[in-house]
Amino acid sequence: MPATFESRIAHYTERVAQKLDSVLPPVTESPRKLHDAMRYAVFNGGKRVRPLLVYAAGGCLNVPERVLDAPAAAIELIHAFSLVHDDLPAMDDDDLRRGKPTLHRKYDEATAILAADALQPLAFSVLADIPDVPPRSQARLVKLVADACGSIGMTGGQSLDLDAEGRSLTADEIEHMYALKTGALIHAAVVSAPLLANNVDTERASAIDAFGRTIGIAFQIRDDILDVEGDTQVIGKQSGADQHLNKATYPGLMGLDQARKRCDELLQSAVEKLNAFGEDAESLRWLARFIVERSN
Amino acid sequence: MPATFESRIAHYTERVAQKLDSVLPPVTESPRKLHDAMRYAVFNGGKRVRPLLVYAAGGCLNVPERVLDAPAAAIELIHAFSLVHDDLPAMDDDDLRRGKPTLHRKYDEATAILAADALQPLAFSVLADIPDVPPRSQARLVKLVADACGSIGMTGGQSLDLDAEGRSLTADEIEHMYALKTGALIHAAVVSAPLLANNVDTERASAIDAFGRTIGIAFQIRDDILDVEGDTQVIGKQSGADQHLNKATYPGLMGLDQARKRCDELLQSAVEKLNAFGEDAESLRWLARFIVERSN
Repeated sequence: MPATFESRIAHYTERVAQKLDSVLPPVTESPRKLHDAMRYAVFNGGKRVRPLLVYAAGGCLNVPERVLDAPAAAIELIHAFSLVHDDLPAMDDDDLRRGKPTLHRKYDEATAILAADALQPLAFSVLADIPDVPPRSQARLVKLVADACGSIGMTGGQSLDLDAEGRSLTADEIEHMYALKTGALIHAAVVSAPLLANNVDTERASAIDAFGRTIGIAFQIRDDILDVEGDTQVIGKQSGADQHLNKATYPGLMGLDQARKRCDELLQSAVEKLNAFGEDAESLRWLARFIVERSN
Repeated sequence: MPATFESRIAHYTERVAQKLDSVLPPVTESPRKLHDAMRYAVFNGGKRVRPLLVYAAGGCLNVPERVLDAPAAAIELIHAFSLVHDDLPAMDDDDLRRGKPTLHRKYDEATAILAADALQPLAFSVLADIPDVPPRSQARLVKLVADACGSIGMTGGQSLDLDAEGRSLTADEIEHMYALKTGALIHAAVVSAPLLANNVDTERASAIDAFGRTIGIAFQIRDDILDVEGDTQVIGKQSGADQHLNKATYPGLMGLDQARKRCDELLQSAVEKLNAFGEDAESLRWLARFIVERSN
């Protein structure tokens, strides 16, 4: 394990990139256009926050990195699928993602719908076939990620988000929507590790679980703060896009200062939950700060 | 087990309806619009051909019906998801499905995209959590269905289908596209049973496998024949819709007579593969005939 956090991040990012490359079908294989589009969606310059959380949580519990590659890659595939559908004209109608054309602009809408539809089952295929992991853990991981991705997780949160356009929500309602839309998959990333670890006691499993729930909401509030204050060059999409769509956001309701304060509170609370882990949770604490303090 | 085929079909259809109802979140649960849309997509008057194949193949191998409910429901959820996305304006742009408004016409495009996106992981959640089934079988079922649904299965077939619009394919290319688009999920339905059975010998497993591959292609050719000759009232969508889109179809290339002949050949070949099962495969043979001779 490299010494500095920056080099750890680089190491983890490289691992998940290799795993993603190995599970995605090559572009030389039919249907080539679809496989090309799937790779465009996945290798999009993303920060890989969810895989980083998988590895860092695994580091807390001494889970071997080679076992973590599968959930890291699978959860990133789910994330990539969700971005492609979110960007569609019938959804957020975005032309740019990280400064590059969104998938439906680069190819066409049908290809964007199908490429994302194919990324989703690939994630479950990867989780159901992890070498050297007991089938029971594989099945539990599938259920964890499937539930996090479905109607009472990420996709349900997207639905609440769309329904909230032009309506005014309370801060609690917004945090609930964030907990589903963004929090569910981030939580799944964090708790993949305890599912793959041997002999995690209930107290430490609950601490990791609570950390995962808290940091996901902070992540989304930070995202919305960046949307308000960022410029197109830094965040890679039109800034103020949410405001343009009249979306319900935490900074929109509470103002930027209160949003920043809430984000710090959640960070503080998340980090405290890791006290029992001592130095073993260093990477996870650092990642939590990175999530809340990042500028893109 | 009821005596006549018709009453068996009714019995299986009722079983899968109950299972689907129990795994789909109630409409009273948030997000209500999404849950309502998911149920609209699933309870659409479909023939439940894939669940029927799961039960009938299970019947050949003495797999208890209560164990088959999960793959029957899961595969129907995947099928329902695919229909919703196929009907979208950017895909086939259909207004009617079985004589009722398609999901995006009944609700809106965003809801149709998301409802289908939430049906897919629900299928995997169901497969990863089957009571009284060893985790190894659950993981294998997840991988089977995930691969059948992805870029080298159903979704890949859809992509080939769209790319073929306006181009002329050979009969072999069309059959390859059918094998992916329709055949992969039908094959997965048929081979769910061997995965859940005890001590199936290699010969019988291969026979079931070959039956599954063959009958899926016959099913899609029959579908395309019905599209050409059917009227809107019987098949529930605008007839000749494929022709309108300039789709590559078997009857379009080879003519109706040759298509009917090929369908019969495939039926004959599929049924012969079941010889070793004797009377145990009665339901499966009857279903194969139903698939090829159905009028909607």
